[in-house]
Amino acid sequence: MLVLVINCGSSSVKYQVRDTAATGEDAQVIAKGLIENIGGAEIPTHTEALHIMAEALVEPLHGKTIDAIGHRVVHGGEIFSEPVIITEDVITKIDELSPLAPLHNPAHVLGIRAAQETYPGVPMVAVFDTAFHGTMPAHAYRYAVPEDFYEQYGVRRYGFHGTSHDYVTGIAADFLGVERSEFNGVIAHLGNGASITAIEKGACIDTSMGYTPLAGLIMGTRSGDIDPSALTSVMIQNPEITAEKMDTILNKQSGLLAIAGNNDMREVVEAMEGGDERAKLALDMTSYRLAKYIGGYHVAVGGMQALVFTAGIGENSSQFRELAISRLGALGIKLDAEANLVRGDEPRVISTKDSAIPVLVVPTNEEKAIAEATEALTK
Amino acid sequence: MLVLVINCGSSSVKYQVRDTAATGEDAQVIAKGLIENIGGAEIPTHTEALHIMAEALVEPLHGKTIDAIGHRVVHGGEIFSEPVIITEDVITKIDELSPLAPLHNPAHVLGIRAAQETYPGVPMVAVFDTAFHGTMPAHAYRYAVPEDFYEQYGVRRYGFHGTSHDYVTGIAADFLGVERSEFNGVIAHLGNGASITAIEKGACIDTSMGYTPLAGLIMGTRSGDIDPSALTSVMIQNPEITAEKMDTILNKQSGLLAIAGNNDMREVVEAMEGGDERAKLALDMTSYRLAKYIGGYHVAVGGMQALVFTAGIGENSSQFRELAISRLGALGIKLDAEANLVRGDEPRVISTKDSAIPVLVVPTNEEKAIAEATEALTK
Repeated sequence: MLVLVINCGSSSVKYQVRDTAATGEDAQVIAKGLIENIGGAEIPTHTEALHIMAEALVEPLHGKTIDAIGHRVVHGGEIFSEPVIITEDVITKIDELSPLAPLHNPAHVLGIRAAQETYPGVPMVAVFDTAFHGTMPAHAYRYAVPEDFYEQYGVRRYGFHGTSHDYVTGIAADFLGVERSEFNGVIAHLGNGASITAIEKGACIDTSMGYTPLAGLIMGTRSGDIDPSALTSVMIQNPEITAEKMDTILNKQSGLLAIAGNNDMREVVEAMEGGDERAKLALDMTSYRLAKYIGGYHVAVGGMQALVFTAGIGENSSQFRELAISRLGALGIKLDAEANLVRGDEPRVISTKDSAIPVLVVPTNEEKAIAEATEALTK
Repeated sequence: MLVLVINCGSSSVKYQVRDTAATGEDAQVIAKGLIENIGGAEIPTHTEALHIMAEALVEPLHGKTIDAIGHRVVHGGEIFSEPVIITEDVITKIDELSPLAPLHNPAHVLGIRAAQETYPGVPMVAVFDTAFHGTMPAHAYRYAVPEDFYEQYGVRRYGFHGTSHDYVTGIAADFLGVERSEFNGVIAHLGNGASITAIEKGACIDTSMGYTPLAGLIMGTRSGDIDPSALTSVMIQNPEITAEKMDTILNKQSGLLAIAGNNDMREVVEAMEGGDERAKLALDMTSYRLAKYIGGYHVAVGGMQALVFTAGIGENSSQFRELAISRLGALGIKLDAEANLVRGDEPRVISTKDSAIPVLVVPTNEEKAIAEATEALTK
């Protein structure tokens, strides 16, 4: 089946056409691309963007037609706990969830509408970044704040990167030769955004991102966890810092960038290796917080069968993995320094044979996961 | 030595006279009391409150004089990492730290001044709630927010309950027959305020409270950790919720109170046992979050030699301890259900003999610790 996977942002569209019947990643990916600067003079709306995409796809498709379209949608709220066929009702609900993801959901709706115009009659599926976390129990997703925060503003933990955590969970269980429904593990998805998920019996029971993708781990430009009262205290001391400004500071001017002066993990690691003290502090903070989460989730899942690293940094930064894993001695985890340096597209073990818990690197593939979910609902 | 221990709040003074040479808690406590409603018509200032206290002490002191006074001071900032003799310079610095503890430090200064008037010439010592946490490394106390938050507003983790964590650490190491400087453990101080501290080689390396006493565990009326962006999002959606209001909501209307409708742990436990679903959720949330912190700090200290419960709830709620400890199976921790029901003033073990890590209950005694610190600096 030929599936077009679309990820619509407010000013960009990322796309990939995948042949789900082909064998191997290279054969599955028929075409991919990125269209930016939507809203500018040349590409005023998402409709134009999708027309440009459709033009670009004519040649690689060789006259074949798209069988189905899978849309990545960031926020499914408490409504969507799995992928769904897109109907008018679904579009309305995605739009209604916009307060929970003001930068993303409205753009997704524009992208879906544009795709309907560009590919009339082609079935479409929405795959939600929050859906995999729908199995969290209330004691993990609720915050201890007044009931009306939950009722009126939907304040609870939702979690994100769900498509990736879900995909990697399946691959990891398979790799270990464990039935997915018997697999307890901890998945660290470390990219420019980063989150960690506690997996019990193959399902999510906790995750570090929260109401928004700000919470939890320290990221490229996001603070992760911080004493909530530190924010209100600073805002009380300096009334020029409005809630909007504070939100921007925490999302765009914090994280590695704030401490190391750079949000690129590779460059921060290089700076540390060159003796830069700020870079060292930033990496110590980031790896230490990750290690604490791993310890907490090890407890949450009742003992993990594996710790799994994935996504850009998780797959490619052997140095950052080493920093984090070196903090896990209390769990009997031992890094195999040589195995940690191996690069590749296949799942692999990077811990020693006598490590109490195996540590894996499992490359993620959100487009593949979205294509498979789309196929499952439309074939 | 006769030491007067004073804890001055904005509208109350709690005091205790202790004979540090006597044997046993009952013999050491010569007198104690609480004066409330300072600022009202009858007790307009702290000076009147301390006069009332001095009057009340005449009879129990039998003509003996106070040798030294120990003041509990909440915030020592980055200046005070141990108890100090109170001088004019120290008073000025405590006052200057008021932005970090606006409810407490100004009241402490008033109390110190009033004590100087009431007991002229008696040496005084300030014992800081933050001091014990002064040994935290930067990667544990820094937040990943812009540098000027740290430089200008002092935004970092300070931690509180330090006098209690310090005292309990010493008792626990002693009880285990370990040199304090060799003791790695996790101390859960669970009262109406609650914090947990990671102890490595007898010193604090991390703690759950942060810039303020709001962060970390779920408490009676305090939220503990929450996605920081949830606050800014709600404030953006509802501009009537100012930073001051949000701070009050998170400190006074959250925690157990928000979920269970009651901030008294004993009553919440009773409600749960009576089948109340909200009470059950609140206790599941509170014990689950505590368990995650224990797992995280177990990793942070490189493997704890003991887990220690202290303070009101930690010492007295066998039910809450059971809820928390039942979540720690991944660490090989096993509760001894009978031992858990024993009450008493002595340190005791509540885990089974084959528990991988012993769990202790160690009664705290902040007044005793303050008296001892005061004696050490003044005798």
